[in-house]
Amino acid sequence: MIGLGLIGGSVLRAAAAAKRTVWGATTSESDAAAARAQGYDAETDVAAALRRAAEADAMVVLAVPLTVVDETLHLLAEHAPNALLTDVTSVKGPVLRAVRRWAPEARYVGGHPMAGTSRSGWDAGDAELFQGAAWVVEIEDDTDLALWAEVAEFAVSLGAHVVPLSAAAHDEAVARISHLPHLLAAVLSAVGAEGGPVAMALAAGSFRDGTRVAGSRPELVRAMTEGNREALLSVLDDALGRLGAARGSLASTGGLAKTIEAGHQGSLAFAEHREQDRAGVQLSLSAPDAREALRALGERGGRITGISGDQATAESS
Amino acid sequence: MIGLGLIGGSVLRAAAAAKRTVWGATTSESDAAAARAQGYDAETDVAAALRRAAEADAMVVLAVPLTVVDETLHLLAEHAPNALLTDVTSVKGPVLRAVRRWAPEARYVGGHPMAGTSRSGWDAGDAELFQGAAWVVEIEDDTDLALWAEVAEFAVSLGAHVVPLSAAAHDEAVARISHLPHLLAAVLSAVGAEGGPVAMALAAGSFRDGTRVAGSRPELVRAMTEGNREALLSVLDDALGRLGAARGSLASTGGLAKTIEAGHQGSLAFAEHREQDRAGVQLSLSAPDAREALRALGERGGRITGISGDQATAESS
Repeated sequence: MIGLGLIGGSVLRAAAAAKRTVWGATTSESDAAAARAQGYDAETDVAAALRRAAEADAMVVLAVPLTVVDETLHLLAEHAPNALLTDVTSVKGPVLRAVRRWAPEARYVGGHPMAGTSRSGWDAGDAELFQGAAWVVEIEDDTDLALWAEVAEFAVSLGAHVVPLSAAAHDEAVARISHLPHLLAAVLSAVGAEGGPVAMALAAGSFRDGTRVAGSRPELVRAMTEGNREALLSVLDDALGRLGAARGSLASTGGLAKTIEAGHQGSLAFAEHREQDRAGVQLSLSAPDAREALRALGERGGRITGISGDQATAESS
Repeated sequence: MIGLGLIGGSVLRAAAAAKRTVWGATTSESDAAAARAQGYDAETDVAAALRRAAEADAMVVLAVPLTVVDETLHLLAEHAPNALLTDVTSVKGPVLRAVRRWAPEARYVGGHPMAGTSRSGWDAGDAELFQGAAWVVEIEDDTDLALWAEVAEFAVSLGAHVVPLSAAAHDEAVARISHLPHLLAAVLSAVGAEGGPVAMALAAGSFRDGTRVAGSRPELVRAMTEGNREALLSVLDDALGRLGAARGSLASTGGLAKTIEAGHQGSLAFAEHREQDRAGVQLSLSAPDAREALRALGERGGRITGISGDQATAESS
């Protein structure tokens, strides 16, 4: 584990609980000390931890903020250039490009667990954080399926459900369901605060829910939203178009039916997705069409819940 | 009680629990039957319930959707024209104008409890819904303070904290902290659903929280947002301006610092408002400056927690 904040610290705890041999490094003295105090093998010398991974042929998990991915990859290229490498960063295209540029010999399969809280740092971590959570494991045209299976099996062993997706499909989806929510929460929070103590005194459920993630650490929110610029711009345009149409309609006819109905339909679709019956599916990772079958599974909202040998057990709608 | 949905049904239950003599009427056969089945005095003849109120000189509480306020006021003008009248509708300016037009002899003091859920109807009601909730009781230049005190005392007796505000101040604040959140939730929900099963499969906390109120009944959301057109347009423009600035900044410099920092500051202001120490204040409702003192209390985010005779006990920041 490189990085022992909320996600890295949770991965370290969950992997240790799953009886894996794990060690971590972080440039944060306080996170390293807190991890050691709880009996974990953690240090502040990232290079040393990487050399140890190279010697043991261990998987390296990058759990550092997007803004320090490049410099961490420089260290990796120097101390563990051929490592089996994954990450937990919230955008996948930029990290894939950075790995190809700075650590081209790494055997990289990107990942992203869809779990978190608005708190951060080692102390916010939790070995149970990934139970039942979606964990995207990236599959590109040139991904080695044996490496992919190792990373997917790792995620499953921490309790997560693996969603196989390309970096592009992942980044487009998270722009919609994670990065846009953060921007809308920021805008709502600022507009609410502009209303002063009266607005704060009347604020109840809808405002509290709509602004919750505005409490997240600004540098982390910036890193993930700015890091997904291309996909986020297109999704922001969609949101701006819809909000502008609502504004125009309210000003002209006074009606908001279209906006509110579309939102309600979306809410029903989300509820339906969560509640729908899913069929069990078996996939062979050595089948000739395995890559296409995995991506198709991810793109229809399916998840892998178990991996044994070259067999993946999945739930698919 | 006229109207026995979520709010009206909760008021009826809470008022009965506070040992008040209460009866209700609703045009919904199912809500009336459900209330009767639980031992409440409820009928579907609104005119008869209003005549009974006129005979008993009882307070009439309008808890009908904004879209049927006018027709209910016609009935009131016919059957209980001089009633002490309040309401629980989520906009205050339009209701005030409707009362002045359709039931000018009613002794009206508007109200709005800031409580709710995304469910609706009698069965969603709860006698405890108003415990500790803010309940705006409207105070205009011509409001009779003795009537105001009766309505405020009613709200306090249901467990609520009374916020004295003009209709204009109320409508501006709720546009920010209730109506804008509903529109942003609708937009987010629609943009998310546009992402299909992949987006739905990856959606986690930020999307769930940001879209929760998009599950509310569309006709109720329309009624409150469309009913607050003027205040909402100005707040929508503020939100559009901020979101457009974020879009421009992301496209040009790639940075979102200003948007995200402003959101985070808003979130801190909201947390600070909730946690700040409040001083106890006593207000005399018969003092010459009582009207100004009450409004000033509301405008700095204060709340009345008790009323006894002409003395109001308040918390003020």
